[in-house]
Amino acid sequence: MTKLGILHPGQMGISVAASAQNSGCEVHWASDERSEQTRQRATQHNLKDAQTLENLCQTCEVIISVCPPHAADDLARQVLATGFRGIFVEANAIAPQRAILMGQRMQAAGIEFVDGGIIGGPAWEAERTWLYLSGPQAQAVADCFAAGPLETAVISTAIGKASALKMCFAAYTKGTTALLSGILATAESLGVRNELENQWSRDDSNFSEQTPNRVRQVTAKAWRFESEMKEIAATLAGAGIPSGFHIAASEIYRRMAIFKDAPETPSLDEVLQALLMTQ
Amino acid sequence: MTKLGILHPGQMGISVAASAQNSGCEVHWASDERSEQTRQRATQHNLKDAQTLENLCQTCEVIISVCPPHAADDLARQVLATGFRGIFVEANAIAPQRAILMGQRMQAAGIEFVDGGIIGGPAWEAERTWLYLSGPQAQAVADCFAAGPLETAVISTAIGKASALKMCFAAYTKGTTALLSGILATAESLGVRNELENQWSRDDSNFSEQTPNRVRQVTAKAWRFESEMKEIAATLAGAGIPSGFHIAASEIYRRMAIFKDAPETPSLDEVLQALLMTQ
Repeated sequence: MTKLGILHPGQMGISVAASAQNSGCEVHWASDERSEQTRQRATQHNLKDAQTLENLCQTCEVIISVCPPHAADDLARQVLATGFRGIFVEANAIAPQRAILMGQRMQAAGIEFVDGGIIGGPAWEAERTWLYLSGPQAQAVADCFAAGPLETAVISTAIGKASALKMCFAAYTKGTTALLSGILATAESLGVRNELENQWSRDDSNFSEQTPNRVRQVTAKAWRFESEMKEIAATLAGAGIPSGFHIAASEIYRRMAIFKDAPETPSLDEVLQALLMTQ
Repeated sequence: MTKLGILHPGQMGISVAASAQNSGCEVHWASDERSEQTRQRATQHNLKDAQTLENLCQTCEVIISVCPPHAADDLARQVLATGFRGIFVEANAIAPQRAILMGQRMQAAGIEFVDGGIIGGPAWEAERTWLYLSGPQAQAVADCFAAGPLETAVISTAIGKASALKMCFAAYTKGTTALLSGILATAESLGVRNELENQWSRDDSNFSEQTPNRVRQVTAKAWRFESEMKEIAATLAGAGIPSGFHIAASEIYRRMAIFKDAPETPSLDEVLQALLMTQ
């Protein structure tokens, strides 16, 4: 029975943990400095509490990092500092060149590094969420999730490929949502929002109907998309492609980040005002 | 019978001219310095050749400017210089603040200025292409196209509204095509293009199938989208929204502009190589 540590059991992380349990792993976490919500999730799913990161890294053969992209380097450095010697899976939305550097640092310290990228929401249903993996030990990690519902796909032995795929995929989905938000705010500011929605309806009535919800729903996640957009911008720039789309998207999400802990989903008007006021 | 001058009978302009004829206008053009293709279009549709811009402006009560955005200011200045005194319709893809400035200059010289924005391709079928109009004399211009198939909509008496709508609409359609192109080039460069297309197919098989054609087909028009993207960037910036999406899109289209007069549509591989090589 593989002992697997999850950093951390957030909404996505807990679903990754559940798929590992489902596939026969014993899943551990470290409660030190974690929120009450995270503790509740871990308790509800019977994760074993190692309390500290040091204990977790001594206990587990595989550690999976699932955190906001801006926290990924720090977390990897903390794991490195414990003297961990197993497989470390970097499953966050970071640029491939950053995954490669992180991998080199960890491999130099004797850690097996596997690059990962998760596409989809929390994995509670089959064929909805994919953990892409790349690196020499990628298959060993895929085996930890064999029973799903989290799906896995080993795409390469090269570190960086899984991150590259994640970046390219999110570049469109999250990039276009930011773009739509910015366009609606511009149309509002210029007094042509109704006319724009009418024209959208002429082409595709669903598009115009769905747009407000797309913009409203993303506000709760915007606080972590700000840094993800910077990673995507770095990914495009690294390939010699203009990075401005996602620099702009990062700024859009920065302005939406005020809705992080909003008690309810803001109205479209409230979101557009936030985009136009926060400069 | 209203005498209407078209500057110039390109692929879009000739369809605008045909709708005006269809609606009872006598349509003129000026062959001076125009290409053989434009001459053929004008002859085929029985446009009256005023030969020079001066003659055209003396003959016509309404002049419509339909040209690439980077040529719009020059053309307006040339019309101004002829001493024209009728209605000038600026129907190009330019930022609203630029339309407003142009309108002020022309109104100061005694010209009636109408702001316009065309959404859709060349107008040969009803309910496919819309000429949005704004300004005090907008209805008089709409009356020139009453019989279609070009559709018109007067959205405001304020100059700038029609341009704002056009900019916001094109911001998404042309912005997302540029974004997709840049993402595919990035995925190609990072060696994950097949994997990206597979993941797109999982979510929506049509999307993955349609993407290559979307990217390939836009190459013929990219040479004029480069400047249109700059106008859109200025529109968003004018509203206080990040302009990076369309600065990047402009650069994507600049790299595609080499396909302007390509004898056939390039393959996706050729387009991606152009995006990656032209830096």
